[in-house]
Amino acid sequence: MKNNFGTNISMTIFGESHGPCIGVTLDGLPAGFKLDLDKIDKDMEKRKAKGSISTQRHEEDKVNIVSGYFNGYTTGTSLTLLIKNTNTQSKDYSEIQYRLRPGHADFSAYEKYHGFQDYRGGGHFSGRLTAAIVAAGSICRQILESKDILIGSHIEQLYTLYDTPFSNEYPKLVNQIHLLNKKDFAVINDQVAHNMEQAILQAKDEQDSIGGILESAILNLPSGVGEPFFDSIESILSHLLFSIPAVKGVSFGAGFQLASKKGSEANDSFIMEDTIKTKTNNNGGINGGISNGMPILIHTCIKPTPSIYKTQETVDYKTKKAQKLNIKGRHDPCILHRARIVVDSMIAFGILDLLMSKNANNILEKETIYES
Amino acid sequence: MKNNFGTNISMTIFGESHGPCIGVTLDGLPAGFKLDLDKIDKDMEKRKAKGSISTQRHEEDKVNIVSGYFNGYTTGTSLTLLIKNTNTQSKDYSEIQYRLRPGHADFSAYEKYHGFQDYRGGGHFSGRLTAAIVAAGSICRQILESKDILIGSHIEQLYTLYDTPFSNEYPKLVNQIHLLNKKDFAVINDQVAHNMEQAILQAKDEQDSIGGILESAILNLPSGVGEPFFDSIESILSHLLFSIPAVKGVSFGAGFQLASKKGSEANDSFIMEDTIKTKTNNNGGINGGISNGMPILIHTCIKPTPSIYKTQETVDYKTKKAQKLNIKGRHDPCILHRARIVVDSMIAFGILDLLMSKNANNILEKETIYES
Amino acid sequence: MKNNFGTNISMTIFGESHGPCIGVTLDGLPAGFKLDLDKIDKDMEKRKAKGSISTQRHEEDKVNIVSGYFNGYTTGTSLTLLIKNTNTQSKDYSEIQYRLRPGHADFSAYEKYHGFQDYRGGGHFSGRLTAAIVAAGSICRQILESKDILIGSHIEQLYTLYDTPFSNEYPKLVNQIHLLNKKDFAVINDQVAHNMEQAILQAKDEQDSIGGILESAILNLPSGVGEPFFDSIESILSHLLFSIPAVKGVSFGAGFQLASKKGSEANDSFIMEDTIKTKTNNNGGINGGISNGMPILIHTCIKPTPSIYKTQETVDYKTKKAQKLNIKGRHDPCILHRARIVVDSMIAFGILDLLMSKNANNILEKETIYES
Amino acid sequence: MKNNFGTNISMTIFGESHGPCIGVTLDGLPAGFKLDLDKIDKDMEKRKAKGSISTQRHEEDKVNIVSGYFNGYTTGTSLTLLIKNTNTQSKDYSEIQYRLRPGHADFSAYEKYHGFQDYRGGGHFSGRLTAAIVAAGSICRQILESKDILIGSHIEQLYTLYDTPFSNEYPKLVNQIHLLNKKDFAVINDQVAHNMEQAILQAKDEQDSIGGILESAILNLPSGVGEPFFDSIESILSHLLFSIPAVKGVSFGAGFQLASKKGSEANDSFIMEDTIKTKTNNNGGINGGISNGMPILIHTCIKPTPSIYKTQETVDYKTKKAQKLNIKGRHDPCILHRARIVVDSMIAFGILDLLMSKNANNILEKETIYES
Repeated sequence: MKNNFGTNISMTIFGESHGPCIGVTLDGLPAGFKLDLDKIDKDMEKRKAKGSISTQRHEEDKVNIVSGYFNGYTTGTSLTLLIKNTNTQSKDYSEIQYRLRPGHADFSAYEKYHGFQDYRGGGHFSGRLTAAIVAAGSICRQILESKDILIGSHIEQLYTLYDTPFSNEYPKLVNQIHLLNKKDFAVINDQVAHNMEQAILQAKDEQDSIGGILESAILNLPSGVGEPFFDSIESILSHLLFSIPAVKGVSFGAGFQLASKKGSEANDSFIMEDTIKTKTNNNGGINGGISNGMPILIHTCIKPTPSIYKTQETVDYKTKKAQKLNIKGRHDPCILHRARIVVDSMIAFGILDLLMSKNANNILEKETIYES
Repeated sequence: MKNNFGTNISMTIFGESHGPCIGVTLDGLPAGFKLDLDKIDKDMEKRKAKGSISTQRHEEDKVNIVSGYFNGYTTGTSLTLLIKNTNTQSKDYSEIQYRLRPGHADFSAYEKYHGFQDYRGGGHFSGRLTAAIVAAGSICRQILESKDILIGSHIEQLYTLYDTPFSNEYPKLVNQIHLLNKKDFAVINDQVAHNMEQAILQAKDEQDSIGGILESAILNLPSGVGEPFFDSIESILSHLLFSIPAVKGVSFGAGFQLASKKGSEANDSFIMEDTIKTKTNNNGGINGGISNGMPILIHTCIKPTPSIYKTQETVDYKTKKAQKLNIKGRHDPCILHRARIVVDSMIAFGILDLLMSKNANNILEKETIYES
Repeated sequence: MKNNFGTNISMTIFGESHGPCIGVTLDGLPAGFKLDLDKIDKDMEKRKAKGSISTQRHEEDKVNIVSGYFNGYTTGTSLTLLIKNTNTQSKDYSEIQYRLRPGHADFSAYEKYHGFQDYRGGGHFSGRLTAAIVAAGSICRQILESKDILIGSHIEQLYTLYDTPFSNEYPKLVNQIHLLNKKDFAVINDQVAHNMEQAILQAKDEQDSIGGILESAILNLPSGVGEPFFDSIESILSHLLFSIPAVKGVSFGAGFQLASKKGSEANDSFIMEDTIKTKTNNNGGINGGISNGMPILIHTCIKPTPSIYKTQETVDYKTKKAQKLNIKGRHDPCILHRARIVVDSMIAFGILDLLMSKNANNILEKETIYES
Repeated sequence: MKNNFGTNISMTIFGESHGPCIGVTLDGLPAGFKLDLDKIDKDMEKRKAKGSISTQRHEEDKVNIVSGYFNGYTTGTSLTLLIKNTNTQSKDYSEIQYRLRPGHADFSAYEKYHGFQDYRGGGHFSGRLTAAIVAAGSICRQILESKDILIGSHIEQLYTLYDTPFSNEYPKLVNQIHLLNKKDFAVINDQVAHNMEQAILQAKDEQDSIGGILESAILNLPSGVGEPFFDSIESILSHLLFSIPAVKGVSFGAGFQLASKKGSEANDSFIMEDTIKTKTNNNGGINGGISNGMPILIHTCIKPTPSIYKTQETVDYKTKKAQKLNIKGRHDPCILHRARIVVDSMIAFGILDLLMSKNANNILEKETIYES
């Protein structure tokens, strides 16, 4: 359903880039969870535009919880949070109202909404809405962390630059995730981080933009989570990730590299350690749509931001005539460093919902284990 | 929800590889659509194991419609179709009941279902269930074709072999799709097709398996289809595609290649032809989750089949001890040629549902177009 | 969604009165529940037409589970059961295909399905489909009974005859429910039962039919079940009960009698016994949509069966001309005694789903109880 | 799902009685509908507490639309509206935090939310939330009215007083509805209205409260609306109506009176006028869950408000000891006159969603009518 997603916990989002506020309703949260509001602020901070590598539209992004929260705890009823839009410059858009921006939803929105859409700043299609998702995701992640489930991401690839990959060794991976979650610019290798920032600045100088790939990991997710056939972990997470503007590819484990592997290379052999594990993790911790206890590994491809300052060719929707387009306004030359916490948030929401579905199913009085 | 998916039309699947039958219920079909049962048979034929490049488990796959169908037409009530399992050899599985097959759902199913799952032939996780999806998808595709919407796929990559890509020119692409839809082994270039079949036979000789990538196209989908935020075309299709066993990656348009492109390269300029089109199609016909009238392009990565005859290392779930595993039974050295019609079917279902959602929204008396 | 209902457990029904079979898919059942097939048969028996007070269409109603069931236990995957239609006499209907039967769905089905509906025996609107619901409900009730939750109903009113009401004393009510669940004709007072059967026979003699009210109770449902705002117990149960053909009214506790009560009479005072209870139960065990631990009390009004043998006035849908209608075929002069187990089944399904939703929510590590 | 309901259009509600605001998100509205904000205000006015027959908590209930609305029209994206809580006196509640109010959700909320619920003024269970529903319903009703579909209600019964019933003659009924929709106190017969107001004042004097029954009608709904099996008109509307606090019974057409009717009395004969109609309307315009073109008739029983000033017996949740309870605060001695527009709003939402589902299904190129 359009702006609502989830089974046992659901997220409903609303708002437009230049409206009074954006927001989200989280429905189905357990009662009695103590929210760490500082953590929410810190997560919001990770998404904020800062410095010269991001847009100059700076928003305070103060999260205002207006329901479902009482005396410091979740109440168990629907929790709505609002975030004001304060720094809007709508006049930047009025003159290009009909000039379709390439790579943006302008044209398809006209076709769907017959011109009634709020076109200012991308309206409902703006990355601005992801601020609400980060706030909602922060709450979900706090609940998961209380159960030792850890989520983190890094910029695996930015344009033609590659970060140090996630470690195959679990304790090292845990450290990587902890370190990444403290960084604003989520890159494991600091030299690569520096180079990536330079690449962003160069793209900006060229009035252009660049994209890349985020790699994410979910640690300590118990085995047995995921609801095949249709609500496999892959299905739920990809559904959520592809809802993020600019995402054009999602894969799990070795992903598209599996196309050129043989079965004998791709299969993850089971080995006995403290529990049953797999020797390799080409399947990214998921078999048959269900977690197997290994780290869940996800790749999300984010296209270069379509708002570039270079002159572009386009068509005017009203006159149907070819036009030159010079985008004004304030835009990001790259969004990967800001999108990373959005990806983490979507993952957190999806995993929390799947965990709750697992709980739902646990209805029998005693745990029944089959003995043949 | 687990085995049910869809908003205005829904699909509910059931069955196990070695149970009496598998089946699917399509709910929400319009009344009065004349079904072409021959077309259903032909689509089933495309999925059938045939010759030496597929498993030797041959099933007749006769589709038996038991409800929602009367006098040759859909009735508008829930349509259930059943497909018998006839050629099962369950004894092949009893001796490896606890020996976890690498790359399969055996372990995660034990963790989720506590050993009560039907383990024979992969049970509910078997590719066998995709037969029901093909039958359901054939019905959906017939309805779409009555509206001139065309879906087709080819094996873009098989192991290290690559087919001729889809044409950027629309009339040529239409021809490619028409030709592909007549082929059992969906490869554009016949020489490549021959090489790919050889590669499958070689993998089989090596007691191994290979995977690859399917590229799919949806032609003539009107602009304005797709329900952002959460029910974008990408979200709905990826949700469905990742439900297919063995799929580990999904991308749209230029997909993961967008990571190393600049915005000025990735943006699809709008141009005016008979209607507004885009010059390139890096976004795969989708902007902001909504169709823009260009061909929808999808890539689906399918891992090599995990059932290989080579001896593998694993663990016995009961004894928790390391074991050698020699898989018996009848298995596919490659499933891309059979999976292609499954992918087409899932896409057809998802697109039909999104078209119906677009219809749902069309509630106002007169078409209202905003005039500023 | 049309033929599918439920959040954590869902029911999908399919079939027509004169098709090859009817059936239902239960999705979301826990794995490892041992099914008592005899109990299913006994529940089916309660719905069967028997003797002179019911239709002469007698069906064996053998339940055939084709998926989700293995070695005597549920597997946790979607469980589909099929029931054959064996005793159909479709020629009874062909001559009145266009003659709209008053009180039936004939006309509205024509308007909705444009004439493509399977009109034989009411098609998808037939009470026949409730056989599948009884089989599904029997499984749900078995799971609830393993948790000591008991469901039972009696014919509170039949035409102008009234049964002894449910007792206000809990142990007596338990006995009443146990006795009722052993009876085929679910009436507490045997003399009233005799009179009711006579009233049915008299209606039959008069080529007419009669209706009435079922009263149902759910015992031992824990407090705290129900998901306000929209998934209150009343909302979920009424949704399910109004799906049963012929149901035209649903109320809880004192129901419509509350209209003429004062607040001081209607309010159920809290009292302290072994736990907190209410002195009276005008709210039928539900406050704010959530169970309070008292018996849940439900009234379901079932209209007299519309198929009567008396000559009726109607219109021919094709000619649009007034017509006399003489219904042939085999019909029930009353369905309350058969509908009772259908009502129990719907209630069982709804309550099981709500219990699972409660479980879903129980995600926090330690039970957190607020201490001010 | 808890606080979200609907298929093609959905409503998500949030807020607590004494929080900063309440609100609702309507998702799935068509783009380009011109909203009449005055009409929304007028509908809000109908729900407002006014004069001596209602609570003295007076709220301005200014509706603030924060998304999905641009330049006077709906945009087609999720529309959220907020209503501030301004006139809260939370101290009235602190001293009775643990003293369970009979007839209220206090106890069941403790059991469900473990004490973390916002207990002030009933929190999320407060009738206060229905203000948001009225605003949402007003939007839905405006859309329906643009399609000539009319909804209206009257107080059929208040305590032991009865209004003139709805007319069986369609033009008279239309007039009744039009007149009712102009009245604040929705009673057809002015003398009865006066007597009812007196009865409310008397109940108030007695520190008590009274309940009653609302009768509602939907006029000009086309035939063929409703989605059997589970999404029958009765199922959808009862689901929504039972979500309203204090509703304990819902029936359609002759409702519970059908229990003592014979089939020959209850059946509505078809007659030919300008189109096919029924002579009587015992089925309330619904056959088989689908509209038949006659007025839809609905009865909703609302219990007397549980907040009465009379001393009541209860238990303290913390000490588990019996307590006297003297409710303070500001309360309604009767809510039927205020609940009427809430009932209309829920009906409007449900009918709009069902109309959209009918539209969704209309996917075939040409209208196909079966010709045998």
